Amino acid sequence: MSNKIPVAVLGATGAVGQRFIQLLADHPTFELVALTASDRSEGKRYQDAAHWVIEGDIPSSMRDTVLTATDPAAVAAAAPKFVFSALPNESAQIAEPAFARAGAVVFSNASFHRMHDDVPLVIPEINAAHLRMVAQQRERRGWSGAIICNTNCTVTGPAMSLRPLYDAFGVRRVFCVSMQAASGAGYPGVSSLDLIDNVVPFIKGEEEKLEAEARKLLGVYDGAGIVHPEFGLSAHCNRVPVIDGHMVTMSVETERPITPEAAIAAMRSFKNPHVAGLPTAPEFPIVVMDEASRPQPRRDRMTGNGMSIVVGRVRSEPLFGAHGIKFITLSHNTLRGAAGGSVLNAETYCRMGLLAA
Amino acid sequence: MSNKIPVAVLGATGAVGQRFIQLLADHPTFELVALTASDRSEGKRYQDAAHWVIEGDIPSSMRDTVLTATDPAAVAAAAPKFVFSALPNESAQIAEPAFARAGAVVFSNASFHRMHDDVPLVIPEINAAHLRMVAQQRERRGWSGAIICNTNCTVTGPAMSLRPLYDAFGVRRVFCVSMQAASGAGYPGVSSLDLIDNVVPFIKGEEEKLEAEARKLLGVYDGAGIVHPEFGLSAHCNRVPVIDGHMVTMSVETERPITPEAAIAAMRSFKNPHVAGLPTAPEFPIVVMDEASRPQPRRDRMTGNGMSIVVGRVRSEPLFGAHGIKFITLSHNTLRGAAGGSVLNAETYCRMGLLAA
Amino acid sequence: MSNKIPVAVLGATGAVGQRFIQLLADHPTFELVALTASDRSEGKRYQDAAHWVIEGDIPSSMRDTVLTATDPAAVAAAAPKFVFSALPNESAQIAEPAFARAGAVVFSNASFHRMHDDVPLVIPEINAAHLRMVAQQRERRGWSGAIICNTNCTVTGPAMSLRPLYDAFGVRRVFCVSMQAASGAGYPGVSSLDLIDNVVPFIKGEEEKLEAEARKLLGVYDGAGIVHPEFGLSAHCNRVPVIDGHMVTMSVETERPITPEAAIAAMRSFKNPHVAGLPTAPEFPIVVMDEASRPQPRRDRMTGNGMSIVVGRVRSEPLFGAHGIKFITLSHNTLRGAAGGSVLNAETYCRMGLLAA
Amino acid sequence: MSNKIPVAVLGATGAVGQRFIQLLADHPTFELVALTASDRSEGKRYQDAAHWVIEGDIPSSMRDTVLTATDPAAVAAAAPKFVFSALPNESAQIAEPAFARAGAVVFSNASFHRMHDDVPLVIPEINAAHLRMVAQQRERRGWSGAIICNTNCTVTGPAMSLRPLYDAFGVRRVFCVSMQAASGAGYPGVSSLDLIDNVVPFIKGEEEKLEAEARKLLGVYDGAGIVHPEFGLSAHCNRVPVIDGHMVTMSVETERPITPEAAIAAMRSFKNPHVAGLPTAPEFPIVVMDEASRPQPRRDRMTGNGMSIVVGRVRSEPLFGAHGIKFITLSHNTLRGAAGGSVLNAETYCRMGLLAA
Repeated sequence: MSNKIPVAVLGATGAVGQRFIQLLADHPTFELVALTASDRSEGKRYQDAAHWVIEGDIPSSMRDTVLTATDPAAVAAAAPKFVFSALPNESAQIAEPAFARAGAVVFSNASFHRMHDDVPLVIPEINAAHLRMVAQQRERRGWSGAIICNTNCTVTGPAMSLRPLYDAFGVRRVFCVSMQAASGAGYPGVSSLDLIDNVVPFIKGEEEKLEAEARKLLGVYDGAGIVHPEFGLSAHCNRVPVIDGHMVTMSVETERPITPEAAIAAMRSFKNPHVAGLPTAPEFPIVVMDEASRPQPRRDRMTGNGMSIVVGRVRSEPLFGAHGIKFITLSHNTLRGAAGGSVLNAETYCRMGLLAA
Repeated sequence: MSNKIPVAVLGATGAVGQRFIQLLADHPTFELVALTASDRSEGKRYQDAAHWVIEGDIPSSMRDTVLTATDPAAVAAAAPKFVFSALPNESAQIAEPAFARAGAVVFSNASFHRMHDDVPLVIPEINAAHLRMVAQQRERRGWSGAIICNTNCTVTGPAMSLRPLYDAFGVRRVFCVSMQAASGAGYPGVSSLDLIDNVVPFIKGEEEKLEAEARKLLGVYDGAGIVHPEFGLSAHCNRVPVIDGHMVTMSVETERPITPEAAIAAMRSFKNPHVAGLPTAPEFPIVVMDEASRPQPRRDRMTGNGMSIVVGRVRSEPLFGAHGIKFITLSHNTLRGAAGGSVLNAETYCRMGLLAA
Repeated sequence: MSNKIPVAVLGATGAVGQRFIQLLADHPTFELVALTASDRSEGKRYQDAAHWVIEGDIPSSMRDTVLTATDPAAVAAAAPKFVFSALPNESAQIAEPAFARAGAVVFSNASFHRMHDDVPLVIPEINAAHLRMVAQQRERRGWSGAIICNTNCTVTGPAMSLRPLYDAFGVRRVFCVSMQAASGAGYPGVSSLDLIDNVVPFIKGEEEKLEAEARKLLGVYDGAGIVHPEFGLSAHCNRVPVIDGHMVTMSVETERPITPEAAIAAMRSFKNPHVAGLPTAPEFPIVVMDEASRPQPRRDRMTGNGMSIVVGRVRSEPLFGAHGIKFITLSHNTLRGAAGGSVLNAETYCRMGLLAA
Repeated sequence: MSNKIPVAVLGATGAVGQRFIQLLADHPTFELVALTASDRSEGKRYQDAAHWVIEGDIPSSMRDTVLTATDPAAVAAAAPKFVFSALPNESAQIAEPAFARAGAVVFSNASFHRMHDDVPLVIPEINAAHLRMVAQQRERRGWSGAIICNTNCTVTGPAMSLRPLYDAFGVRRVFCVSMQAASGAGYPGVSSLDLIDNVVPFIKGEEEKLEAEARKLLGVYDGAGIVHPEFGLSAHCNRVPVIDGHMVTMSVETERPITPEAAIAAMRSFKNPHVAGLPTAPEFPIVVMDEASRPQPRRDRMTGNGMSIVVGRVRSEPLFGAHGIKFITLSHNTLRGAAGGSVLNAETYCRMGLLAA
């Protein structure tokens, strides 16, 4: 019998669900014991129900897995301790609390619970401590399980790159402009007629999420709740003809003087001991490239197996004088920004001893 | 015999040269009397020397035109009064002054002379008055002709949209991020391996040009020189997989309070009587769209025959409080931002009576 | 009061409906008097109901037109004589016969009726005589109106280019491979995740349609029905990352010996006097390009306002010896292959005196 | 001291050279001991001279390798036994014989020597026996080394898929249409202005190479030379907006009756014992997919680490009756079709005991 932790994927047939399966099929400490889907697919084999849209093929160990309903009762026999949710918001709102009530720790990709006061919103390298809020959440909601959210896929680059700058120099204002990949909208998502020879300068709700989540992520958990930092962030969000990999330009005003060299040093030395060495953790959370024309989505999105944030073109932001820095970030939106982020949250949760707790 | 003004195109075989020919082949007041090319193509018929890369076909009236050397002597018989230069910088540096010395008014697309103190850098809707600097230029340089520059293709959207805001509200700081089309780099320009499923976050020299030219364009000609305005502008420039049409996001801090409604009203009512009604002038220099997801390059770049600036998503910029506005601009980089801009400069020059002068 | 023929568009909000509106808003002999849509949009103004996805803007004369139900009764007051149908197959099956029964001549883009024995399937340059089948259709079905179909968008290039070859040399076998544009699938149609850096080698039902329709189109109407020709056609259909413009490679075995020169001459001289000079007819139905690398979709699809077929690379097909010819065709799939084709069918119908009949 | 075979890469800085380095940096039996480049880069470190354009980063072991001249004398100290040539045709013509004369076995990607009578043109799964021609080549040319060519990148899919069909059913005629990736033209190669929203229906020399090489590849080496088979092949070659992965549609006439089931069985069971188990050999040389819409370049090109041919849509070709089969092939053009093919040729050469010989 396996000593691995039994886990399930909710909404396993969609694009994010497929990423979860890709990451979990051979995971060293988690074992996939259940896949759920909507009513339409319940009872089908995975290979018959899923229209596989990511590169490569369905892992052979999952091809014949029979899909169950997205309901705690339906997976009770398999007894997953962790549940990775790739559900859309409407189903997440109902199903995720049901699983948490039934005792599972839900690692959610949906936005519904992200900004709730008692729900940890976590990128473990930058705010693993927020995971401890689970105790309060359980007490308040009366759950034996929990809900832990990962972030909007666009905020990962800005938030991770801001963490070392915030700690070393303080942050006042951040001007962000995103150039986001098509896969961020799921499948089928964005029409090809909207993205061939084109850019769409609007993504519904995205700018608001980016602004709100960045501040929660950089907040401090004081044992009672998250104390949000005081900086402001403003974003323009755009969709560009790229498959995977969100680019975000950053113009940052810091509290204390900053130089490109100091910014680069802070980002390159950034590490979190709670996370280092975990199976899904990249060796370097932030990779800073020196070449003037990098990072680029197609060439650099797989850095650190798609889990590193890649930063480039670090230079002074003249409009903020000695307090200004500007650069670009790239993050893989369906690995670091979605499925990979949740798996790393789960690994960190174990490392911090919270599963036993 | 035609009463039209005889004109020539220098560097007629390249991508910008092709646009000039497209615009001038049936122009109501200019008549194409000479096309020049590099030594390699001299003496060939246009259709044999040019690899036509823009949409449609070579205008039939130009197919058999024999290319001459790029030299005033070679076109002397045709006696062009205006010379439209699509030359690359290295040749422009030599050839443009030669033509100006020989008496022609050169409308240049090259960057070489743009920032010279006595060279007008003109988008006629916003600074037609700079054209009067030609008198000083002639005096200082001893030319009977002149050199008049149009701008870098990326600055047209920012500069034109800033003009009415600057006039009505004052401008302090501008954060720009560009998403630029492939055609901005000419032909062959950017490799397809750099632009399929990719974004390149760097264009050599572009950010510096954008920052310098925007300030010169919004300056005031006081009879002696250009008084540059005091605002600062900072840019991130990116290349995206789009054929034509540069998008630029704008986050603007104004001197006086501003609202989206007031900004839109100022942009929509913007007109310049020196330019209105000219053959190449769009009816509306700035078109503001209301739809949340517009403008988009492929769908909107031909607004006003590719000569209007299209603005969208006008909203408050929260990081600048009551003094902040943000929006996106789109301009057709090879029409408004290159050949069309030069032709409109020439038309304005005539309208202002400077040809006779 | 206008002397124009009153016409309606069924399914006016979709991508093909938009093309109809673009073509009919300023048509010299037709006047748009009604636009219909699904229940969801009924009663709304066109500009509020339509998500305009083609280039340019909604024609201003149509912006405020109120959408009616897709029902003969709903448009009875406007009394359209011609009805252009952009309906999907399921609605076309019901609504098109209803309009024909009510007396309108329906020019349909749907595939449902195309292969019915008594329904003309028409590309007027190549088989305008099939329009006369309307008399039989009326008799058999007891309609005062009629249904006239245009073709699948992919077959236009092959069928038009085969017509002069068939007439001059006879045709035995045709091997076709298509590279089709995204717009052929409507909007939203093909996901961007399926078409960025990708080709999809399958389009449901397309190969069968291409094979069947090509033979009907080249058939002879003998007063009783269509006599299909004996040749065979086999296709591979592929979707490629192109907005508009279907390319089809052709390897053709002819009955009698053929040479590239003879094939080109036959195609270049091809004209149909029933069609020549009509408002939507191109001057040259088939344009043969000499340049080795043309036609190309983006550069050549607008040839003849998108109504010409463009042929290139005409050369011998060695596998068929003296009887073989091979080349490539390009046709604009939403103009010639959809809305434009229907409008030209209607113009031809008038020219042939069938409206009065 | 390493027991690995010392190898060099000629033309190491270009796109194919980069692929070689990626494949050889950690090869189990070959050790990279020298990298050569053009005069311009000689003496530079690899990371300073190469503009790395493929995904991922330069292997760290090669970053500091100093580039030598492309000359046997310059690498004599390193004494490479195998030389992988990524040289362009003009340099290959001179340099490859020089290395062969100096004793190295040159595995070439250039087309110059491919069709020479005494040069093996090899895809080892289908014609490893041709490698034995090296003995004759040495004798005739007086070399101690040799030149062994891999194929044009487009022919790999057709040739490999035809091998089992030829063996089981005989082949008379093959109609091919390619949709080729941008990387086939090298870097910078095809302009983005030629490939965004576009297809280019012509690639210079490609159709001729495809036709000639396919017949040599399927020929039989009888100890004296290659006996070419009698079938004919005709191709239309197109460039499409895809990064890597050439698709080729195939309509094949066989000598003996064939069915889709029999064709699939022949392709799936195809193996070559000379190649099975080699480090670069895929487990399955030909992978046949059942899904109607596969293979697709982006999703399937990495099948078998980019070394398998992927076949799909196997069905009857009606125009050839019981003797007809049609299908599509996909092959990774810079792995299987270029660098990977050469490395596999070298591995096979060792396996067959020819190195010792």
